[in-house]
Order: sequence, then structure tokens, then C-alpha cells
Amino acid sequence: MGLMTKDQYIESLRKLNPVVYMFGERITDVVDNPRLRAGIEATGATYEVAEMDEYRDLAITTSPLINEPVNRFTLPPGSIDDLVHRVKLNRAIANHVGTCHQRCTGLDCLSALSIVTYDVDQKHGTSYNQNFIEFLKYMQKNDLTANAGVTDLKGDRSKGPTQQADDEMYLKIVERRSDGIVVSGAKVHQTGSLSSHEIIVLPTRAMRKGDEDYAVAFAVPADAEGLIHVVGRSSLDGRELEGVDCGNVRYSKNCPTLIFDNVFVPNDRIFLCGETEFAVDMVIKFSSFHRQSHGGCKAGKIDCMIGAALTLMDYNGTSKVGHHKQKVIDMIHRAETLYGCCLASSYEGKQQASGSYFIDTILSNASKIHEGKELSESIRLMIDIVGGFVADMPSDKDFEHPEIGPKLKRYFKAVEGVPVENRIKMFRLVEKMAMESADTISDIHGGGSPEAHRVTILRESDLESKKRSALRLAGIEG
Amino acid sequence: MGLMTKDQYIESLRKLNPVVYMFGERITDVVDNPRLRAGIEATGATYEVAEMDEYRDLAITTSPLINEPVNRFTLPPGSIDDLVHRVKLNRAIANHVGTCHQRCTGLDCLSALSIVTYDVDQKHGTSYNQNFIEFLKYMQKNDLTANAGVTDLKGDRSKGPTQQADDEMYLKIVERRSDGIVVSGAKVHQTGSLSSHEIIVLPTRAMRKGDEDYAVAFAVPADAEGLIHVVGRSSLDGRELEGVDCGNVRYSKNCPTLIFDNVFVPNDRIFLCGETEFAVDMVIKFSSFHRQSHGGCKAGKIDCMIGAALTLMDYNGTSKVGHHKQKVIDMIHRAETLYGCCLASSYEGKQQASGSYFIDTILSNASKIHEGKELSESIRLMIDIVGGFVADMPSDKDFEHPEIGPKLKRYFKAVEGVPVENRIKMFRLVEKMAMESADTISDIHGGGSPEAHRVTILRESDLESKKRSALRLAGIEG
Amino acid sequence: MGLMTKDQYIESLRKLNPVVYMFGERITDVVDNPRLRAGIEATGATYEVAEMDEYRDLAITTSPLINEPVNRFTLPPGSIDDLVHRVKLNRAIANHVGTCHQRCTGLDCLSALSIVTYDVDQKHGTSYNQNFIEFLKYMQKNDLTANAGVTDLKGDRSKGPTQQADDEMYLKIVERRSDGIVVSGAKVHQTGSLSSHEIIVLPTRAMRKGDEDYAVAFAVPADAEGLIHVVGRSSLDGRELEGVDCGNVRYSKNCPTLIFDNVFVPNDRIFLCGETEFAVDMVIKFSSFHRQSHGGCKAGKIDCMIGAALTLMDYNGTSKVGHHKQKVIDMIHRAETLYGCCLASSYEGKQQASGSYFIDTILSNASKIHEGKELSESIRLMIDIVGGFVADMPSDKDFEHPEIGPKLKRYFKAVEGVPVENRIKMFRLVEKMAMESADTISDIHGGGSPEAHRVTILRESDLESKKRSALRLAGIEG
Amino acid sequence: MGLMTKDQYIESLRKLNPVVYMFGERITDVVDNPRLRAGIEATGATYEVAEMDEYRDLAITTSPLINEPVNRFTLPPGSIDDLVHRVKLNRAIANHVGTCHQRCTGLDCLSALSIVTYDVDQKHGTSYNQNFIEFLKYMQKNDLTANAGVTDLKGDRSKGPTQQADDEMYLKIVERRSDGIVVSGAKVHQTGSLSSHEIIVLPTRAMRKGDEDYAVAFAVPADAEGLIHVVGRSSLDGRELEGVDCGNVRYSKNCPTLIFDNVFVPNDRIFLCGETEFAVDMVIKFSSFHRQSHGGCKAGKIDCMIGAALTLMDYNGTSKVGHHKQKVIDMIHRAETLYGCCLASSYEGKQQASGSYFIDTILSNASKIHEGKELSESIRLMIDIVGGFVADMPSDKDFEHPEIGPKLKRYFKAVEGVPVENRIKMFRLVEKMAMESADTISDIHGGGSPEAHRVTILRESDLESKKRSALRLAGIEG
Repeated sequence: MGLMTKDQYIESLRKLNPVVYMFGERITDVVDNPRLRAGIEATGATYEVAEMDEYRDLAITTSPLINEPVNRFTLPPGSIDDLVHRVKLNRAIANHVGTCHQRCTGLDCLSALSIVTYDVDQKHGTSYNQNFIEFLKYMQKNDLTANAGVTDLKGDRSKGPTQQADDEMYLKIVERRSDGIVVSGAKVHQTGSLSSHEIIVLPTRAMRKGDEDYAVAFAVPADAEGLIHVVGRSSLDGRELEGVDCGNVRYSKNCPTLIFDNVFVPNDRIFLCGETEFAVDMVIKFSSFHRQSHGGCKAGKIDCMIGAALTLMDYNGTSKVGHHKQKVIDMIHRAETLYGCCLASSYEGKQQASGSYFIDTILSNASKIHEGKELSESIRLMIDIVGGFVADMPSDKDFEHPEIGPKLKRYFKAVEGVPVENRIKMFRLVEKMAMESADTISDIHGGGSPEAHRVTILRESDLESKKRSALRLAGIEG
Repeated sequence: MGLMTKDQYIESLRKLNPVVYMFGERITDVVDNPRLRAGIEATGATYEVAEMDEYRDLAITTSPLINEPVNRFTLPPGSIDDLVHRVKLNRAIANHVGTCHQRCTGLDCLSALSIVTYDVDQKHGTSYNQNFIEFLKYMQKNDLTANAGVTDLKGDRSKGPTQQADDEMYLKIVERRSDGIVVSGAKVHQTGSLSSHEIIVLPTRAMRKGDEDYAVAFAVPADAEGLIHVVGRSSLDGRELEGVDCGNVRYSKNCPTLIFDNVFVPNDRIFLCGETEFAVDMVIKFSSFHRQSHGGCKAGKIDCMIGAALTLMDYNGTSKVGHHKQKVIDMIHRAETLYGCCLASSYEGKQQASGSYFIDTILSNASKIHEGKELSESIRLMIDIVGGFVADMPSDKDFEHPEIGPKLKRYFKAVEGVPVENRIKMFRLVEKMAMESADTISDIHGGGSPEAHRVTILRESDLESKKRSALRLAGIEG
Repeated sequence: MGLMTKDQYIESLRKLNPVVYMFGERITDVVDNPRLRAGIEATGATYEVAEMDEYRDLAITTSPLINEPVNRFTLPPGSIDDLVHRVKLNRAIANHVGTCHQRCTGLDCLSALSIVTYDVDQKHGTSYNQNFIEFLKYMQKNDLTANAGVTDLKGDRSKGPTQQADDEMYLKIVERRSDGIVVSGAKVHQTGSLSSHEIIVLPTRAMRKGDEDYAVAFAVPADAEGLIHVVGRSSLDGRELEGVDCGNVRYSKNCPTLIFDNVFVPNDRIFLCGETEFAVDMVIKFSSFHRQSHGGCKAGKIDCMIGAALTLMDYNGTSKVGHHKQKVIDMIHRAETLYGCCLASSYEGKQQASGSYFIDTILSNASKIHEGKELSESIRLMIDIVGGFVADMPSDKDFEHPEIGPKLKRYFKAVEGVPVENRIKMFRLVEKMAMESADTISDIHGGGSPEAHRVTILRESDLESKKRSALRLAGIEG
Repeated sequence: MGLMTKDQYIESLRKLNPVVYMFGERITDVVDNPRLRAGIEATGATYEVAEMDEYRDLAITTSPLINEPVNRFTLPPGSIDDLVHRVKLNRAIANHVGTCHQRCTGLDCLSALSIVTYDVDQKHGTSYNQNFIEFLKYMQKNDLTANAGVTDLKGDRSKGPTQQADDEMYLKIVERRSDGIVVSGAKVHQTGSLSSHEIIVLPTRAMRKGDEDYAVAFAVPADAEGLIHVVGRSSLDGRELEGVDCGNVRYSKNCPTLIFDNVFVPNDRIFLCGETEFAVDMVIKFSSFHRQSHGGCKAGKIDCMIGAALTLMDYNGTSKVGHHKQKVIDMIHRAETLYGCCLASSYEGKQQASGSYFIDTILSNASKIHEGKELSESIRLMIDIVGGFVADMPSDKDFEHPEIGPKLKRYFKAVEGVPVENRIKMFRLVEKMAMESADTISDIHGGGSPEAHRVTILRESDLESKKRSALRLAGIEG
């Protein structure tokens, strides 16, 4: 009850018993598996910072719903201030962990549901909002983490859910019972599914008449019966398992594929069930919130990359090199662009019918379009600055080897006074930030593909007013 | 007294008698010279919108100083809200005029002076702030326009003011009298000097001991004795003079060189006089405010360009062409990036010792760095979309010619139902927005050169905190 | 007969009597009209360099057709060496004139016709190639200049030639007679039409069955009866007319609209007449050659811009400024990229059935795609380096004014030892190169729009072989 | 003797006995270690293609030195044709292997030495060229592979070799004996050191008086006494070791750190020894050749990436999606730009005093500057097109798992008719091409850092001629 410490959070996960596979094996000790633990630690940081003087005011607020202090990651935004704090908190934590803390996705689901369930009920007389409010209270009171079960496999991309050769290419209601529904299918890129207590499922795209079985939103515990987490490969996945050369010595990320094998959802955990016309709203609200989350988070990640680049400039003896400074500026500019557009989208947010606040979508998508292109460029700049050891630095096992270790340490030394171990560690961190697929691919595809962000700003812009100005100035009458 | 209408504004300029040269000739009818008038009309729009329902709330506010309604362009920001409104108003007016309205520069001077004169007085026991407050009251009560006399010629750029072969390469105090000072020198790129009632002069760069004669700020009327406005060439300067093919049928821009030939400044109009260490503050405050002004303004100008591009897509029959839409998205993205960073810099502003508010400089410079590169790209995109007639469309005189006019009009027709005249006019507007040097060069150099913006974000960023994060994550102890 | 000197060339134009309008007036003294003359001078440079030791070997070669020395601009490429020399000659002349010399377009037509007329004859038993060969001999023997009448108005872009509301939106055969054809319509952006002796007309796009009246290619003298040249507006068009502030003191460019009002073409000047399936070949061959011409030419123009930037760095006192050097590197890189891809497209050329050589279209289009984006960027970089006077420098009339001239000259002086006049002139040249619409718009739209270049490299690439490699490496069997 | 088949090549490596460490362990079965073997296979492809009809003409030529057929990778360029074939062969093999074949570096050393040893001898009367020629005959007659021992650790980058705290931060002659020299130090990023029979060492930077012990070039066998290869970490290094999820089922890359622990070099294997002023020539010649090698190679690698992207468009059902096609065009454009500039640099090569041919350095560096930025962008585009599975696709061990395998295969199916296994394999290949650090980092740092390429084009360009043009056009005399 109430706010959890980081340790309590980790203990709370031990009580769950999810079905997990990784590399062909069943994993039972999720919390103690070093690869999975590194991801859990990153989410743990959202609990940890709530205890730190430096971040507490950003991380802790009071929920008007339960009238108690809550971690901001369980609070749908109820004000402009809440929207803005989301961004600042995400930047701060990303800078703290140097990777994805994973807890934003659940909040983005809660935020979207806080708006759309209300609207569905208004139209259809349903009680999804009541279900949601109860669920939200539970999340807040217990300081829980949720993940976002949004992305379906989609099968043949040129076809909709019902046109697929296999009817489960989108997660589907396979049975409607008096006490609830049974769903089957899969969700992929499930960032934080093993750091989470709850899995919140939303539709992944607009639905139309006939897609009723696919227009579904709900929440189930991360160890619900029938749920299978399959942890996939990522580029550096072996490092934590080997316990060496991790780069980021504290945190990492993984994003399982989540199979729903006839999972039962009780009625009071259902937030949408067949009202097809609201699927698109849920997707847009969720993905817009999530793009905003990215804007803060990725700015913070670039902050880390800048820090690593500057430190290696010190270590390499290039702190005064002009083009290195220019490249640092290029990195700062990218971080601040993401952050600026994202902050603006928050300050320009508007209250919705349910009372929750929603961001300005043009500005949040403007931020995300930059992320999709410029994070990759920021990584390239960091590599350019620090030099080629990102490619092929010997293992710590070699550096510690009695015979070759001393030789290697001799030759990898650079600026006097800097312990060679520090230089090695910093290069390893750069490798992690640059080359970890589990983390970096979401710069491009997280929150929807880059094209989705582009289409959004076209659709949301007031094109007619722009035309009217041009017509007036050209001297063309009404 | 009080707010002026646009007509009153124009009449008020008739009462001034500035010394003006253009193309080797003395100009006495400034207000009725068609080229100069087009610039004055653009500034007039800042008065006009204050009368329009659509913009009034944005444009008019109450000055706590005089406790009367004032045009926002005479109000140094006294709150976050004021900072934000500056951006939105600039975007709205830029969209309305499709060029530079010129009145932001005076406000940027007022805003900078409202902060720095206070600080100088605190340190030196001077009374510049009192001088400034009285001047500000005068500006507000009479709804006047000022321009920013900031940019010196600078002579040999590798040398400071006192190292130059000629001691007036920076504007200089040439005489100190009991009732005031006499200054000589020149200021260039004087956007709006002929749309202005007052010229406000600030230093153009940091000064050091020995530069006392150059560390000077003051205001004089635009027709002060000894002031000479030399209106320079710009790429399309002939069009208004000929009265044909203007493109923007209402507005234009020009930026005279302003020569100060022993101009007397009375004591109560002096805002800095020899306190060299504050020169840099004035420049930074002014240029930061001005970069923020650009962020709103240029977003509004891109809005116009988007409107012209979309309209010509309609006229040319390419509204459904996919790559044209993609290019419109690229334009929108650029407008919103400028705007987003600029808005964020405003929302994140902080109150200064004097009570005025100042923006976040990292974010405003992040916006300006984009402007310096992306306005040019936006223009290129617009030209790409609309086609090659930006290069060489026949003159309206040809289109109206009895013999060849009908032939030309026949062949320049495109989509049925669109009068050929409209298509011609819209191409002409595009030409104006794309190729008018007086306007477009300030995308690059307005508010300081691009390098200045870059250096600023490096200097203002908290680099140490970024390093600390990297060190912690790499596992490097304290 | 034989090679002309530049003076002879100019005299030869005096013998023509084209119908010309400019700004609503009939122009009869084309050669002596200062605006038109500046364009003619640029074409004249192609004759001038043929007399200069430095360029003669590049400019003069021997035609196997007439077995006499000819200017390379009348020689369709008969070898790889010819293809390569085209590029180098274009770069050299562009650097020499700092703008468009206009004579490439005629050569690009001759080159395209030398290939396609042969192919048409092979299929249809026509004698277009014989017509062409005779015309070519005439061009070579008299060292004539031709322009390319390619770009139609196109009307509603969503419709083909026969679907337009007006049947002359594409140039059309309106009568077929025993001794020739009569054509009507218009061609736009006629670079060099008044520097040319001959107008060569080609179709502007692919044609299909039913478009026979539009599938037409031919040549007529520049003063043929019924031809009307309408010289359009360009951004700096007034400067040569005023005779002041020209920037480029020698050369300029203009691109008339050309109206064909029932122009008769005798049979022996017809190169295509109704064979619709070959229209696309003519366009592709012409535009590919023209894109190659651009690659050399625009590299040479960037060379000039680099020279101006470097000179102003000397004049301004910024030669040692690091970021200025970086921007010069960025400019060089762009020039060499255009040039490199273009050279490669030439070296990789292939002989065609007719014996002429044709370039590699992927590489020439790769070059042109860079031009469409990077010339604009090069201009921006130049402006960034040199400073803001591109916007609004006072007129030479002001600098020469007895009263304000001395003051202006005083203040515009920079590095000691550099005459202020030189600095002024160099800024004016920069203004011309940056802001002359007649010249710069062709960076984007010359040789077809940017999208055309992109589509070409997709269509021409061997996509299947790339897929095969990926399949093999992924371990996917046949 | 004579050309080896790929099998013979691999057998020939078995005869070597290099000292190798990887991840803290001594490796004795280099050829059969799966990770190292994958790299050896890639070099093996240079032997394999020499036997294939498709590539034989490109790969095999006759050496005028030994008058026998040789693999092009042992032939310093003796003609323009040789230069051009280098590029085409590198593109073809890169497309064939989808990664780095590693054999170019040795050829780049041979090519540099063929020029510079001659020049040193001319000046100093040494016999390095004779040493080199004998070594070259040995390489050619036995069809051997060499690697390039160029990159030193460099220690503190702000200091030269003799200023370092440790005197072996650059590889050093530690003893001069009558029969040879003894060297100590280390070289890093030794691409292909375990695929090679010989290690060729060159200086890594310009040297000056006093640096004699560091101005050294020579060759030693890959298993010379005192040589230690330490195979470092790369992002996907575990995959070949595990034997699963390799992505590229045939090839990979690794780049050991090479420690020289008192390695003896006999006199006849020395190519430079103390002639400090020629160090810079060796570096420039080597790195220029190597940048040219990259231009061909990386174009070929992008070809593979395009192939993978197109195939996944087919598999995902997005072949007709417009923005996907646009991104493919962007990838093609990048490949052709690298290739075009690189080809041009070859065609524009010049013969050197020794008789060998050297490329145009401006154009080869123009190519490399694009590589340093655009390979990263090409990877980003590929990821954008194919979707997010690059991040976290389940392992093949999961897909083959009896329980969850069938479920996973069901959900990962996309377009009908495409076996799910193929889709999985193709995603894995994309992961390998996108995220393999050993390969991708060399896009940025291979052949010297990006800044080195930029400085080169500035230094090599004829800036004065560009200034002269600008001065003439501006009307500035003499």
C-alpha cells in the first residue's frame, strides 16, 4: 500500500509467476536472471528517484482520485502542469539510467484510457470508465507498473484484421462469456512486460464495422494464465548473461513478444469491447502520449551520450579540438529540439471531456519526427567524437587476463592521470548506448513508425488558414 | 495618446522628417514612396490586427506601468504569459503579412533594456532604468514603434573596436557634454528604421576595459539631426517602384543603413554609457529575445509558404501527388519545430531582478539554429512543389499587353475553373517569398549569425551534469 | 564558316530578327539591350574560351562528320572521351561566367537526337536521322548555338495532352502539309532562346497512342515567322537595365517564354512526327544529357561561390575562423559530389545503336538529385560565411553620391589594404549568385523536377540482383 | 603456387600458428572457431569469386611483375583500368558477402608502398622498393592475403609519439640490429589479421625529426614470434559462437588488437626505417586508397541492405507503399553517390614516379565523407522500412521450441505464400547488417576519421583559381 521503494518494487515482482521463455529455455527466476534484472533495475529507477531529494518533487504528486501521494507514473495528467512534469521527469530518469526505463508506456495507456473510456461511455452507455477508474485506483494505491500491449503482429500489412489468412494476426476476442471475455493473439515489442505487474492491452490501429472482435482494451496481471513472455534477441543480449562487458553497469532493456493463449479477462477489467469507432481514438491518444514520453526520454538519453562524449574527449586528449566541440553542439541541438517541441506540446495541452489533459499533437509529433531521424545521427556523432573502439575493444576478461591484461592496459592508456580502467569503461558505455538494438530501434519505431508521425502533422494542421493567408497576400479575392 | 489605428500610425509617420537616400537620390516623401510604403504597411499591420476581432486578445494587453491598454509591441514581458503571447502574436502577424513586420526589433530592445538597465543601476548607482522607464511610458502612451540599432559595421572582424584603423567602425561616443552625448558611426540592416518613430541603439558585442566609448545604449527619434537612412538594394526592390509584379500585393521589407553623423543624445535618453561589462548582457538579452521573435515569426512565414504551395497544387492539378504532400509535411515540420522550441523557451522563462521575464536561451537558440538552415530548405521545398515559374514568369505588363497578353493567358491556364490571373498572382507571391533578399537573408543572419546561436547552446548547457550521468552509468567512481 | 570568335558570334546574332517582348514592350535591339546582352555574353563565353590557351583543348575538337575543328557544343558525343570532356568543359565555363552559359541545352538536344532519330528510322523506315545529320552539319560548319524547346506549359498536370480543356497546352501539330508541318503552342523556361540561332523542339513527356499531334521534334531559326520570345521577370532583372549594381559585371541569364503561333517547319527540319512511342526516349535522352551538363556546370558555379566566400573571408578578416573554413569544406564537398557522380556517369557511358555515346543514367541522376538540394544549401553556406550584406547593401549610386558616398565608403571598409570598392563589388557578386532567380531556380527544376530524377534511379537500378544477394546471405534458398 | 581456390586458402591458414586471445582465453583452432571462421569465410569470398564466371574477369588479371594471372587483391594499380576495377570488384564482393571482406586493406598497403618506397629510395638511396618488389612477388605468386597494421593507439591525442608518457603509444623500433629491427607497440582495429598470411605495418600519422623510431614500415607473417592477436568484443559476437541467430549465415567480421611484443623484422622485409618525412606520404597514400576501397565496398553493402529492405517489403505486404519506395530511392541514391565519386576518383587517377597509379584524392575523400554520414542513414532507412523486429525478434531456439515454436511461427507469418522461416531469416540479416559493430563502425572511422577526409578536400582543392574567378566576375582588377 502506498508508494514503494525500489527494493519493495523488486520484491513485489518476485510474487509474480509469469511464463517466460528466452533463447529456447523456460526462465523461472525472472528477477534474478541477470539480463532480465538489468531491465527491471531500469524500471526500478522510477521508484528510486522518487526517494531522492533531487527528483522527488518531479516524481511524486498527489492523486485527486485517491487523495494520496502517488508516483507520477500512475497519474493520468489532470493539468498542464502534469503534462509538463511528465516530460521533465522522463528526461531526468533517462539521463539517470541511460536507457529506457519502460514505465512510461503504462502511464501512456492509463492516460489514453482516462480520456477515451469516458467518451465511449457517453456514446454507448457503457461503464468502461468506471472499470478504468477502479483499475487506476488499484494501480495508484499499490504503486504498480504496467506495460502497453499495443503492437500487434499485423500479418500482411496490406490487409485489415479480418482479411488476414489467419484470424489472430491481431489480438482477438475468441469467446464472450457472462463473466468476461477470452482473448487470443500476440503483442510484440512489449517493453517492460517483465518489469510490470499489469499488462494493459489497447488496439493497435483504427477498426471498422466488422472488426468488433478486434476492438478491445483491457488489463490483466503480467502472470495471467495463458500469457507467455518470449524474450527476444537483442544485439548485446549476451553481456548481462555473461556478467561482463555490460557497458551500462546498472541498467538495460528488453522487449518480449507476448502471446495471449486464451487469456480470460473479467468484466471489470474490460475498457473497450467491440465499439470499433473508438479504436482509432485509443491508438491516437496512446501514441500521442507515448510520442511525448519519447521526447523527454530521448533528450535525456542524448544528455548521457553527450556526457560520455565529453568525458572521452577529456580522456583521449581532444577536449580542445574544434570539430569535436561542434559535434557536441550538434548533439545538444538535437536533444533540445526533441525536448523543446515536446515541452511545447505539453504547455499547449487541452482539457478533455473526461477532465484529463491531452497534449498538442502537432508539436508532439514534430518532436517524434526529429527523434526518428536524429537519435541515429546523435549516436553517429558520439561515435565520431570518441573514436573507433566502439567496434572492437577487447573484453574485460582480456584486460584482466594475467598475461595479456597488463599489455592491453598499457596500450589503452591515454591522457595521464586518467586510470585506463575508466577509459575502458566509458568506451563500453558508449558501445551500449550506440549498439543496443533493444533500445535504439525504438528511436525509430517507438510510438508508431515515422510515417505515422508525418501523416499526423499533415492531418492535424489547419491547412485552410494557411491557404487563406496566401490568397489574401497574392491579391486573390475570396 | 493611447492606441493608434493603422491609419493614425501612418499619419504619425508623416510628421517625421527623416533624412533618407535611396539609389543615389534624396527621398522626401517616405510614406508615399511605394517601396518604403510597402514596408510601412507591414508595420502598420501590427496596428491593424489590434483592431481585428481575430487577433485583438493576442495584440492588446494592459501595461502595469501606465495602467492602460497597450499594443503588446510596447510591453516588455512581465510574465510567462507575456513571453508566450509574443510568440503567438509574431506567428499570427507573419502569417498575415507574409514577410517581416519589423516591429519586433524595437520590442526586443525594450525587453532587453528593461532587464539590464536595472542591473547596471544596481551595480553602478546610475539612473538608466529610470531613463528607460520614462522612455517606455512615452512609447506605450503613444503606441510608438522603435527599431533596433544594434548591428555595427565591425570593420576588420579579427579586431575589436579600438584596434580598427578607423575608430568609428563601431558606433562611438565622440563627445560627452553636460546635457548629453554626441555619437558617430553607423548601424546596418536597420529593419524598420523608416517604419519607426524611435531608434534604440544598443552595443553589438561584448566590450572590455578601454572600450568605454563604444559601450553605449540610447534612443533618438528617427528623424534626429545627423541621422541618415540609406535604403539599400534588395533583390526585388524595383517591383514596388514600378508598381507591378510585386507578388505580395500589400507588404514588403527594407533595411536601411543608418549613419549617425554627430547625433546628440540628451541625458534622459541614455541607457548605458561606458559600463563596458554590461555590453555583453545587452547583446545577449536583445539577441535572445530577437531569436525568440524569429521563432514565432518565421513559423508564420512558413505557414504562408505552405498556403501558397497548397494553393498552387490545387491550381496546377497536383493536389493528389504523393511527393508533393510529403514536401508539404516537411514544410509543416519545419514551421512547428521553430515554433515548438520557441514556445518552450517562453514557457520556461524566468523572472529577472528587474521584474521582467526572460526566456530560456538554450531553447530559443535551438529554434534559431533550425531557422538558419531550415527556412532556406522550406523555400526550396516550396519552389520544388510549385514548379519553375518562380524563375521567369512574364510580367503583368505582358499579360496585359493587347497583342501577346491573350496568348500568354491562354497558355498559362491550368486547372479548369481557376482564373489564370489567380495562378499568375500566386506564382508571383511565391517569387516574393522565395527571392526577396531583404527578407530571406535575415533567416540566416537575423539575431546574430548561426555560429553565435551554436556557441550559445554550448555555453548555456549544463555539461557537467551530463558527464556525471555517464560516469555513474559506466561505473566510474566519483 | 568554321569556328566563330566571340565577336563574330555576337555579330551573327545581329542578323537575326526575332520577335521579342519584355515587360510589355517590343524589343528590337536584342543584342544591345543590356539585360539581354548580359545573357548573350554568357553564351559568348563558350566562343571566347575556344580562343583561350587555357581552355582550347577542352573546347575544340574535330568532328568526324565534317572533318573540321568544331566547338564541342556542336558535337554529339562519339566516345567516352567526348562525354567526359562535356563535364569538364561545363565546369570550366561555369566557373568562368559564374552563371548559366546556356549553350549546353542545344548540345543536349543534338546529342539526344543523334541517338533517337536513328532508332526511329530503324523501326519506322523514316528519314529523321538523315534530316538530323544535315542539320547537324549546318550547326557544326557555322558554329551555331541552339536552345532546347522542351518544356511545355502542361496545363492541368493531372491530365495528358489530349485531355486538356485547351488542346494547345502542349505544343501541337496543327496542320500537316506536303512540304512540312505547322505547329502551335508554347514552350517555357527557354534558356538562351535569344542567345541562339536555332530553336530545337522536343516533346516534354512520354506520349501514347492518340497523342500523335504532340509527338513532334524539329528545328527552326530563332526568328522564324510566328515565333514570339517573351522575356519574363527575374529577381534581379532591373540591374542590367539600370546599368548599376549588377554584381556579375559581365554575365547574366534570362529564360523567355516562347510562343509558337502557327510556325511552319519544312520537312527536312523534322526529327519526329507522330511516332508517339519514341517521345519518351527523346525526353529521357535529352534530360539525362542535360542532368549531366548540370553536374559539371553547377560544380563550376559552386567553385565561383567558394571563391567569393574565401575572398570575403580575406576582406572581412575572418580567414582564420574555424567554422568559416568548415563551411567552405561543406561547399567544396557539394561541388565535388556533383562533379564526381557526373564524371562517373560519363566514364561509364555506352555506345548506342547510332554510334553516339550515352551516359550512365543512374549516376547522372544521382548527381542531379544532389544539385536539387545542395545548390540551395551551398548558397546558404556562402551567405552564412560572408555576412548579411547580401540583403541590403546600398546602391553604387549611393556609394558614388557626393554627400553620402564618402561616409558610406568609410563605414563599409574592413581589412586594411583592401579597397572598400572591392569589398562592395564582391558582396554584389554574392548577391547575384545567391538571389538571381533566373539562374538559381534551374538548380531545382532544370532537367526535370527532383522527383523525376528520383524515379529514374529507382527504375534504372537492378533491384532483383540486390534482392538475390540478400536472400543468399539470409540463407533463403532459391 | 599460383592462384588459390577458396578451400586452398582456408587450408593455407591452418598452417599458420598465430597467438590469439578472445574473451580471456587462448584460441588455438582459429580456422575452426566459428566466430573467427565467419571472418575468414568473408576473405575466402575474394578467392571464391575468382573462380566464378560472373566475377572472374573482374577478379583475375595478369601481373606484369611475375607475368602470371593474379588475384586483383595482390596487384598495385598499374593503370586507370586497374583503379576502376578495384572499385567495381569491391562493390561486387561486398554485395556478395554483405559485410567486410577484409582483403582490401592489404592491397591498399601494397598500393601505397609501391609508390612511396620508390620515392624514398630516390631521395635517400635506400633499397626499400627492392624489398617491397620481392615481397610483392611473394604475395602474388602465392596469392596471399595481408592486413594493414596502420592504426596506433595514439595515447593522449594532443601529443605526438615522443611526447607521450609511455614511449610505445605508437609502434616503435626498440632495437636496430645488423640483420633487422625489433619493434614493440600495438596496432588496433586490425581488420582481417586472422584472415591474413602477412601483416603489413605502416605509420599512422605524419612524423617529424626526432620521431625516427616511429617512422617505420615492414611486413611480418601473421604468426611471427611476439605477435599477439586479441579479438575484441563486437555487438553480435556471441551469435557465431552460439551457432544460432547469425543473420548473415555465411560471413562476419572481426578486428583484433595486435600487440607487437619485441617482434623481429629482417632487413629484407623493411620498407621504411627512420625517414620521417615520408611517413605522411605513406599515410596519405594508404588512407586515400583505403577510402577508395570503402567507396566501392560500402556501395555494395548498401546494395545488400536495399535487397533486404525490398524483400521484406514483399514479405510484409508493403511493396506498394509510397513512402517505402521513397526510402529505397534514398538508399539507392546514397549507394550511387559513394560509388560515383569513388569511380570518378579512379578514372581521374594519375601515374606516379614509380609507375603505379594513384587516385584523385579530392573525389575519393568526397566519397568517404558521404560514407561517414550516409551509411548510418542508410541503416536507419532500412530499419524504418522493414519495421521494429530488428530490436527483439525471438531466437531461432524459440522458433524451434516444441511448445512455443509453433505459436511464434503462427504469429510471425505475414504475406501468404512466404514461408515464415524466410521472413525470420531476412529480419535476422537486417539485424546483422544494422547492428554489427565490428562492421558498421568502420563506416565512420575506417580510413581515418571524418574530419581527416574533410581537411583533405580543403587542402587539395585549388582555392586560388576559385578566388580568381570570383574576382574577375566581380570586376576586381589584378
